[in-house]
Amino acid sequence: MNIIGKNHIGHRLSSKSNETLKIINPETNTENSNIFYEATLEEVSEAANLAHSAFITFRNISGPQRARFLNKIADNILKLDNKLIESYKEESGLTEARAINERARTIFQLRSFAELIHNNNWRESIIEEAEPKRIPNPKPDLRKTQIPLGPVVVFGSSNFPLAYSTAGGDTASALASGCPVIVKAHEMHLKTSSLVAQAIIEAAQETGMPDGVFSHIIGRGKTVGTALVKHPRVKAVGFTGSISGGRALFDLAAQRPEPIPVFAEMGSINPVVITGKALKKRYKKIAEMYANSITQGTGQFCTNPGLILTMESDNTSDFIRELAKQVSKIPSQCMLHPNIKARYEQLTQDIKTANDLQIVTDIKNANKPNYADALIATVSGKTFLNHSKLHQEIFGPFSLVVRVANNNELLAIIEDLEGQLTGTIMAEQEEYPDLPPLIDALQNRVGRLIFNGVPTGVEVCAAMQHGGPYPASSDSRFTAVGVHSIKRWVRPVSYQSFPKELLPENLKQHE
Amino acid sequence: MNIIGKNHIGHRLSSKSNETLKIINPETNTENSNIFYEATLEEVSEAANLAHSAFITFRNISGPQRARFLNKIADNILKLDNKLIESYKEESGLTEARAINERARTIFQLRSFAELIHNNNWRESIIEEAEPKRIPNPKPDLRKTQIPLGPVVVFGSSNFPLAYSTAGGDTASALASGCPVIVKAHEMHLKTSSLVAQAIIEAAQETGMPDGVFSHIIGRGKTVGTALVKHPRVKAVGFTGSISGGRALFDLAAQRPEPIPVFAEMGSINPVVITGKALKKRYKKIAEMYANSITQGTGQFCTNPGLILTMESDNTSDFIRELAKQVSKIPSQCMLHPNIKARYEQLTQDIKTANDLQIVTDIKNANKPNYADALIATVSGKTFLNHSKLHQEIFGPFSLVVRVANNNELLAIIEDLEGQLTGTIMAEQEEYPDLPPLIDALQNRVGRLIFNGVPTGVEVCAAMQHGGPYPASSDSRFTAVGVHSIKRWVRPVSYQSFPKELLPENLKQHE
Repeated sequence: MNIIGKNHIGHRLSSKSNETLKIINPETNTENSNIFYEATLEEVSEAANLAHSAFITFRNISGPQRARFLNKIADNILKLDNKLIESYKEESGLTEARAINERARTIFQLRSFAELIHNNNWRESIIEEAEPKRIPNPKPDLRKTQIPLGPVVVFGSSNFPLAYSTAGGDTASALASGCPVIVKAHEMHLKTSSLVAQAIIEAAQETGMPDGVFSHIIGRGKTVGTALVKHPRVKAVGFTGSISGGRALFDLAAQRPEPIPVFAEMGSINPVVITGKALKKRYKKIAEMYANSITQGTGQFCTNPGLILTMESDNTSDFIRELAKQVSKIPSQCMLHPNIKARYEQLTQDIKTANDLQIVTDIKNANKPNYADALIATVSGKTFLNHSKLHQEIFGPFSLVVRVANNNELLAIIEDLEGQLTGTIMAEQEEYPDLPPLIDALQNRVGRLIFNGVPTGVEVCAAMQHGGPYPASSDSRFTAVGVHSIKRWVRPVSYQSFPKELLPENLKQHE
Repeated sequence: MNIIGKNHIGHRLSSKSNETLKIINPETNTENSNIFYEATLEEVSEAANLAHSAFITFRNISGPQRARFLNKIADNILKLDNKLIESYKEESGLTEARAINERARTIFQLRSFAELIHNNNWRESIIEEAEPKRIPNPKPDLRKTQIPLGPVVVFGSSNFPLAYSTAGGDTASALASGCPVIVKAHEMHLKTSSLVAQAIIEAAQETGMPDGVFSHIIGRGKTVGTALVKHPRVKAVGFTGSISGGRALFDLAAQRPEPIPVFAEMGSINPVVITGKALKKRYKKIAEMYANSITQGTGQFCTNPGLILTMESDNTSDFIRELAKQVSKIPSQCMLHPNIKARYEQLTQDIKTANDLQIVTDIKNANKPNYADALIATVSGKTFLNHSKLHQEIFGPFSLVVRVANNNELLAIIEDLEGQLTGTIMAEQEEYPDLPPLIDALQNRVGRLIFNGVPTGVEVCAAMQHGGPYPASSDSRFTAVGVHSIKRWVRPVSYQSFPKELLPENLKQHE
């Protein structure tokens, strides 16, 4: 049975529509052979209703059982072996090394959540026993724990076909919490997504999970995604992608008769501040470090350093020259999709109209259709402040170096920035006493602060915050990465004066 | 200096508008003498900008200093003594005993948050030290803590002029977190609100808090509230009140260029399930208990039991008769405002059109204008399922007893209910083995489950969940009551590879 091309409505394959689509291989700029059936609205509704039925069972399945399911998903993904890696490469234009690395991250995330839910500590339960003799009124016994919200729709990202897609962080955290998941497959990597979906479905069957605990829906454009987010059985949404895409889903969800939470991890330009002393002491090293960070994965990371704020100093020009030199040395690389390449071209053209903006890298004119040249531009602080277009993300191997005149201008620029995933400070030890106002200002605009490092490379751990003030994410109070990302899909419930035998296991006694 | 009647823009009084309003004393149905100046849009903007300036200082003021501020607010409220209690009574029609009780709750909340922030444990900080030798990549040092969102606008409730208003739970939790607060005074109790606002401002001055840490804005209708929620310097909203009011603010906030979180605690009918055996064993006791719960505070509680689901049994009629008798005995009571009385009259009229609905209490025709009679109606399960109007909250001393034919009908009714703050089960020990499906279904619709008790009476403690699936609240993942309500106003931020001397105190080392 060929599982590639059809929708997974729970354990069942379905292809009711006449609408089909194909995937482009960005490396060769040709269509791959597989044909994919777009889901009909009927199929969307079937998946949502089935997810609701599954929820009634799934929410009461024990943590260790759900952990088995997650570990089995990881096992099944590994079993796909080279088939998965090849599909990843042919759909994303990314390298084999990257594919293997990202698969490892995906497996790690699944196993982290499996470990997390092996006991109930993650539910942050609180037990307050009755105080029948309290004056003036007795205090009742009250116990609080966390329960899952219901079916979650996950929109995977273009730039992480594995780790932030079908079985990525959103899916793993939602399943861990007890929420069924419906993945809207990303239309740039449908084969990779279908392979992973099949691995999940098989894991569900092998570990006795209810039909509908996972569905995988194919769709182009907005119709299918809109229908999923508006379906009354859907109770939350996870999204990784562009600001316009995330905002559209957020708006749909907020306008429902019953609004539901959307966690959208969206765009960011990830400002980096480099002090004059840091430039003086090590501008070459910093240039090299950042040339790599800016161009890694063809710059297609949400934490790509798209804005470098250098303090005007004797070495600013040296740094810019060195950064341009280092970046110019890096060969053109393939982008994820012709549309992404086209948008990169468009946006890097658009900014050229800004006063005093200069492109400092060599123009190589990459001769393969979806290949992009890395690009560094520079501009004065004043121009940056007056051109909000320069504050927008350019997805790809691009960074804008702003020559900041003084500390007041720096703080004004930071205050004026939209919300960001990260903010980085490159500084020398002798400057530490002067840094608190900068740290304070930057902290108010970002979710993660990095010191003397690069923002790319998002560690998967409990102390990670991946999210930030809008539009970095749609709700800065949650993270998309690390075990705490489970908090997006659960809500507290209290039990008052309940007999012990009727309480959930984890509320029966202090542990 | 007469502080009553003017807006508090930070530490300053302001009354730029020609628009004024007065408050009605619902007990006497006459206007009170004080004149209140509605805020102009300019004043709204001044308050929001000042709150932003204050935030820059306030967010870095230490926990113990903020705790002093909260405790001083409590002290100053107590110093208002009888002046506050009299104002409360003349604006709300509620009793002196209730006023004193609610003041105690308000003080307790302020002091609870002061205690909470005396150290940094509430920030749930996580420290993960670097692992420079990890294979394949070193792990950076990562430390996460919680920081405040920014200025919060609080819309107080009509039914709790102290505990869920000016210095109520939303204000106390937001100030505790480090967020400045702008209260939009509730237009039914402006004098009480102004007295408390002045107590807060004086506490801010006495404890050296920045100007703008608190403002108090007067407005009628939607103009002022809308301007506050749409102001770009405002970063979150707390609201307690009706579904239509909460939803309107939620929509405004979601449609902003930068959407902001709204925590709205809205309506609820708080279903109560009474089993056949419970009716048989103690229908009289249950009737008495519920007659009190339904009529307490003229039924004007968000946790009022507005829906009683009785299982059809030999004693259902006895219970209904007894409940009607007990409720009929209770004298008419004053409601909060003529508008609230009018709405109660309207809604209790509207439901009479439902098939087989019967009013079982005596009609006393309360002879004072804003006094209301308690009302019990009964209806069959089938009619209830088919009339969504019967699922809506009727704010006041009303409850609908549904005669449920069987267990399937009970589960269908529960599944069909909108989200609720609470759900209650009255049952006998011999029935425990049969209850899990009911508990599971009810749990999926509510924020708090009560066993053999009444939903009224919301304990202020960490194990309390006050909130629930929409429309009980706008985000079921948070609580409006208890110390965890602080989580609504904070977001995580991570520090990567930071030198110790530049970390916030609470991230410097494991505690």
